[in-house]
Amino acid sequence: MAMRMSTLFLRTLREDPADAELPGHKLLVRAGYIRRAAPGVYTWLPLGLKVLRKVETIVREEMDAIGGQELSFPALLPREPYEATNRWTEYGDNLFRLQDRKGVDMLLGPTHEEMFTLAVKDMFSSYKELPLTLYQIQTKYRDEARPRAGLLRGREFIMKDSYSFDVDDAGLEAAYQRHRAAYVRIFDRLGFDYVIVHADSGAMGGSASEEFLAVSPVGEDTFVRCEATGYAANVEAVVVPQAPPVDPAVVAATPAAHVEDTPDSPTIETLVAQANALHPRADGREWTAADTLKNVVVMLTHPDGTKEPLAIGLPGDREVDAKRLEAQVSPAEWAPFDEKDFAAYPMLVKGYIGPRALGEDSPSKIRYLLDPSVAEGSAWITGADEHGKHVFDLVVGRDFTADGTIQAGEIREGDPSPDGGGPLTLARGIEMGHIFQLGRKYAEALDLKVLDENGKLVTVTMGSYGVGVSRAVAAVAEATHDDLGLCWPRALAPADVHVVATGKDQAVFDSAGLLVADLEAAGLSVIYDDRPKVSPGVKFKDAELLGVPTIVVVGKGLVDGTIEIKDRASGARRDVPVERAAGEVLAEVRGIVEQGDGAAPADPA
Amino acid sequence: MAMRMSTLFLRTLREDPADAELPGHKLLVRAGYIRRAAPGVYTWLPLGLKVLRKVETIVREEMDAIGGQELSFPALLPREPYEATNRWTEYGDNLFRLQDRKGVDMLLGPTHEEMFTLAVKDMFSSYKELPLTLYQIQTKYRDEARPRAGLLRGREFIMKDSYSFDVDDAGLEAAYQRHRAAYVRIFDRLGFDYVIVHADSGAMGGSASEEFLAVSPVGEDTFVRCEATGYAANVEAVVVPQAPPVDPAVVAATPAAHVEDTPDSPTIETLVAQANALHPRADGREWTAADTLKNVVVMLTHPDGTKEPLAIGLPGDREVDAKRLEAQVSPAEWAPFDEKDFAAYPMLVKGYIGPRALGEDSPSKIRYLLDPSVAEGSAWITGADEHGKHVFDLVVGRDFTADGTIQAGEIREGDPSPDGGGPLTLARGIEMGHIFQLGRKYAEALDLKVLDENGKLVTVTMGSYGVGVSRAVAAVAEATHDDLGLCWPRALAPADVHVVATGKDQAVFDSAGLLVADLEAAGLSVIYDDRPKVSPGVKFKDAELLGVPTIVVVGKGLVDGTIEIKDRASGARRDVPVERAAGEVLAEVRGIVEQGDGAAPADPA
Repeated sequence: MAMRMSTLFLRTLREDPADAELPGHKLLVRAGYIRRAAPGVYTWLPLGLKVLRKVETIVREEMDAIGGQELSFPALLPREPYEATNRWTEYGDNLFRLQDRKGVDMLLGPTHEEMFTLAVKDMFSSYKELPLTLYQIQTKYRDEARPRAGLLRGREFIMKDSYSFDVDDAGLEAAYQRHRAAYVRIFDRLGFDYVIVHADSGAMGGSASEEFLAVSPVGEDTFVRCEATGYAANVEAVVVPQAPPVDPAVVAATPAAHVEDTPDSPTIETLVAQANALHPRADGREWTAADTLKNVVVMLTHPDGTKEPLAIGLPGDREVDAKRLEAQVSPAEWAPFDEKDFAAYPMLVKGYIGPRALGEDSPSKIRYLLDPSVAEGSAWITGADEHGKHVFDLVVGRDFTADGTIQAGEIREGDPSPDGGGPLTLARGIEMGHIFQLGRKYAEALDLKVLDENGKLVTVTMGSYGVGVSRAVAAVAEATHDDLGLCWPRALAPADVHVVATGKDQAVFDSAGLLVADLEAAGLSVIYDDRPKVSPGVKFKDAELLGVPTIVVVGKGLVDGTIEIKDRASGARRDVPVERAAGEVLAEVRGIVEQGDGAAPADPA
Repeated sequence: MAMRMSTLFLRTLREDPADAELPGHKLLVRAGYIRRAAPGVYTWLPLGLKVLRKVETIVREEMDAIGGQELSFPALLPREPYEATNRWTEYGDNLFRLQDRKGVDMLLGPTHEEMFTLAVKDMFSSYKELPLTLYQIQTKYRDEARPRAGLLRGREFIMKDSYSFDVDDAGLEAAYQRHRAAYVRIFDRLGFDYVIVHADSGAMGGSASEEFLAVSPVGEDTFVRCEATGYAANVEAVVVPQAPPVDPAVVAATPAAHVEDTPDSPTIETLVAQANALHPRADGREWTAADTLKNVVVMLTHPDGTKEPLAIGLPGDREVDAKRLEAQVSPAEWAPFDEKDFAAYPMLVKGYIGPRALGEDSPSKIRYLLDPSVAEGSAWITGADEHGKHVFDLVVGRDFTADGTIQAGEIREGDPSPDGGGPLTLARGIEMGHIFQLGRKYAEALDLKVLDENGKLVTVTMGSYGVGVSRAVAAVAEATHDDLGLCWPRALAPADVHVVATGKDQAVFDSAGLLVADLEAAGLSVIYDDRPKVSPGVKFKDAELLGVPTIVVVGKGLVDGTIEIKDRASGARRDVPVERAAGEVLAEVRGIVEQGDGAAPADPA
C-alpha cells in the first residue's frame, strides 16, 4: 500500500520551526517526520516512525546474528536496585524520579545495568550457562539540563542496550570483539560516515571502551585522529604521555628559585609582559606563556553533596578543557572557584597562586595535580602566593611536588598523537554507539556470581554496549541532508521511491498509478504524490524535502512516452521510456544502476 | 536460528511464584515468559517478548488494512493538554505525575486522546483531509490502586490506541464499523473465545461503545448474554427497561399509605419477618423482600473534591451493583454513607429511611433516583423515617415522586433481556478491546475544527479504539492454559515447534539437529531442547509448561526409525518415520493434519 500524499498524515512546512536549532533537526520537523511534544520529548509521525523502525530492524538483526537474546525491561523502575549501586544518588538531577500513589519511590530508567544484572542473577547460576548476551530496544529517560538539538539529546529516547556476561576476562574480551564487529556491520549498513574512537568510560566505570561517532560539524563530541597511525580518540579519552624528566645536569644548572616583583600581572598575558620587561632572560630569548605554570583551582561537588577543591597545574599556553576535566572528576561535577571559595582559602592569592600553596601537604591541603606535559625537573615562572609577585626558576621535584597528574589540559590540532605517531587533527562527531568492558562493578554491587568449573563461586564480568536508535535518525539527518532537504541513505529512507504525478491530465495519474502498482508488486515501498490540485513546483519541493533517494516524475514527458528518474542526492536525472521505467527504478534501488548510454554496468571488481 | 534450550535465557520454575494470583499468570512466570520488576510492572523475557510481538504484528496488520497510519507519541507528556480537558484532575491517583528538574509538571500518559487531537489540529485543516485514522502501539501508565493479576491490569502496559477523525456523524459511524470489522479479524486471528458486548463508555464520554471480552472465569468484567436474541452487554451497560405503570384501577384500589410499628427491623430480612408477623397481608400471601422498597444512600466525591449524597430506591430483593453504580456516577467516586454522613443528615433514620425524607424537594434535598423496575403506581413497604416504623401501601407517583431513575441495580441470571428476548445468562470476561464513538468531547475541549465543503469551520468528531496488547498475552494465557502449562494458539506461540532430543545417544542429537535444520529451512521457528544432561522427564515437563502447540520428540523411537509428534493441546501423539517427520510437522503447523491411517484429508467443505 503506497503512502499516498493525498491521505498521508503529513504537513510539510516552508519555514523553519522556532523550536529547532540544527539543520537536520529543522528538516525533520519541516518534512513532517517528528514534532516536539515537550522540551526534549518528541512525537514520531508516520514517516519518522518508518525510519526509526528501519534503524531498529538493522540493529536487531545484527544483535541476533551475534547470538544476542532480546528481552524488554520496563521503563518505570523501583528505586532499590539503583540504590544498591548508588546511582539513585549519582545520577543527580538527570534522573526522573517519581512516587506512586502509595508514596513509593520509583524512577524512569536512564540505563538498565541493574535490571540486566539482577535478571541474570535471578535466572542463571553456572558457568555452563555463559557466555550470555542480552539486549533490548527500549525507551529511556534522562532529564537533561539542556535538552539539545532535538533527538540528538532528548529526555525520552530509544536505545538498544546490551550486556555480555562472562566468567573471565578472556570471555569479556571475546564478547567485546563480537559486539565491535556487530557495531561495524550496523553502522556500515546505516550508510553514513562514522569513526571508531577510544572513549572515556565516563561515569560507568570499567576499562576498554570505544565510541562510534557520526562525523558531523554539529556533533557534541570532539575527537582526534592521527592519519599516520590510525589512532582515533574522543578528546576526553586522549591520554597525553608523561613528559620525560629533564636531564639532571640541566636541573643542576638551574638557579635557585627566586621571587620577583611582577606588579599587576594576574593573567598569563600580563605576567609574560612583566617578566620580559622587568626580568629578561639571561640568554636574551623572550619569555612566553609556555614558560609559565598556571594553577587553576576548581570546586568539585560530589554526588552526596560534599565539596572538595582541586588544583591543576599546567603550562600557561594551554587551557583546562572543560569536558576532559568533567570526565576525570565524574561522577563529581566541577565549577570555577568563586569569591566565596577564595574567602574560605585565604592562602590562595587570586591571580598569583603558586605550587607552594597547593598540595595535600600544603597549608591549604588542596589536592594538586599536574598536566603530564609538566616534566620532572622542569623550571617555571609561577605564582608566589603574594599579590604582584611571581617565583622564577621553580623546579618540579626540586622545589615542589604535586599529588599526581591529571588528563585535563586541552588537546590542540597538531599535538603529537599519544601513540607516538604524527600530529593530531580535531573534528566533531555525534556519539551513535558505545561499547565497553564494564567489568565487575555491577556484578559486585548486586552480587551476581556463578559456579565455575571447580564449583567455586566467581563474580561475573560484564560488557555494556549501546546504540542510540532514535539519535541515529537525527544523526543521519544531520550527516546527510543538503540545502534542499533530507537526503536518506537507502537503508533508512521511509520509502524506496517517491513517485510524483504532475499536471491535470488523467493519463498522468493513470500511468503513475500503474507504475506505483508495478513497483509495489516488485517489493518496493512507495510514496505516491497523487494530490490532484497541487502544483508541480510544490510537489518537487516536497519530494526534495522528504529525501527519498529515488524520485520518479510522471508528467509532461509522458506525451513523448518517457518518465523521469532522479537521484535525490546527486540531482542527476534521466528520462526513460515508460515501459522500462519500473525495471530501471528497481535496478537503481537495488544498486544496479544501468548506464544511460546503454553500456553494460562497469565490472565492480 | 533455533532457540536452543542450552543457551536460551530461560529458567523454568516448578513452584508457583509468590507474587502471582491467577493460574495463567503463574504459568507465564513459571515458564519464564515474564518477571515482575515492581507491583504491576513486568519484564518481558525472550519467550514472552516473542508472544507480545506476535500480538503487535497482528494488530498492526489489521490496522494498516483499514488505512490506519501508525505514529508514536511519547509516554512522558506535558501537563497542559490534560489540564485543558480536565483529565489532569479527573484521573486522580491513577495518573503518574512527576516534575522535571525545573519543577515543570509532567505525566506518564494513561491514554493519548489529547495528543492525537492536538496532532491533527496541528497538521490538518480541511474536510478534504478526512476521514483519517491514526494509531500507535505504545507503552502506557496507570497507577492502579490494586495492580491485579499480573499483566491483566498492570501499571506499565502496552496498548494499541487509535482514533478516527471525521467531519460528521455518518463518517464516525463508518469509521466505527471499519474498526469493528478490524477488531473481529484481530481477535479471530488471536485464536481464542471472545464475545462482543455493549459497553458503558465510562469516564470517556461519548455514545456507541462495544467491548471485546475474552471469556474467562478470572475476568474482571461481568457480562450478560441472551441466547435467544444474541444480545450481549457488559453488566455496567445493561439498560433495564422502565417497568410499565400499574393499571390506574389497581392504584385506585390501593389503601392510603399507613405507618406501622415494625420494631427491630433495620434490614430487609427483619422487616419481612415483622411485616408477616405483625401486619399480615389481607389476601393471606406472605410478604417477601420484593414487596419492600430499599433506600440506599451513598456519598459521591467529585473529581474537584466536592461531596454530594445520592439516594437509590430499589426493590428489597435486589442489591445495588457496585460497578454499575460506579459507571453511572463516574467520574465521581462513591462510598457508603458513614456515621459522620448520617450525623450531618439527622432526618435520615438509619435502617428506616423512606422516600419522604429523600428527593431534591424534601427536607434533606438529597437527590433520589429509582431503579427502573419500580413502576409508577406500584405500592411498597418502605421506611417511615422513624426508628422501628415502616410505611405500608406507599404508592409511587401518588405518595411520592423521585428525581429520576438510575441503572445501578444488580443484574441477575435469568433476568429478561433488555431487548425483549429471553432470559439472560451471566459470565465473566477480560476486556481485550474497546471501540467507541467518542464524539466531539476532545475536539471541543482542544478546539479541533476543519473547514467543511462550504468553507465553514466545523468541530471534528472522533472515535476511540483500543486493544490491550500486553493484556492480550495474559488473557490468552488465562483462556487457553491447562493443568500442565501454557497452551498457545498457533498465531501467538513463541515458536511453531518444540523439538525435544532425549537420551545420551549422539545419534539422537544428530537426528534432532537435522530435523530442526529442515524445519527452519521450511520457514518454521523452533525451540530445540538440546540440553545434554537433562532427563527426558524434565524436558517433557518443560515442553508442556512452555506450551508450543506442536512437540516433536526425537528419542528412543529412533532405533525403530520413528519420531513422535505430539499435539500440546489434545495430548494426541503419533509416531512417524524419520524421513517423513519434517513434512508431517510442516503439514500440522500449517493446519493440514494428515490422518494417521493414510487416508486423504477430509474435504473441509
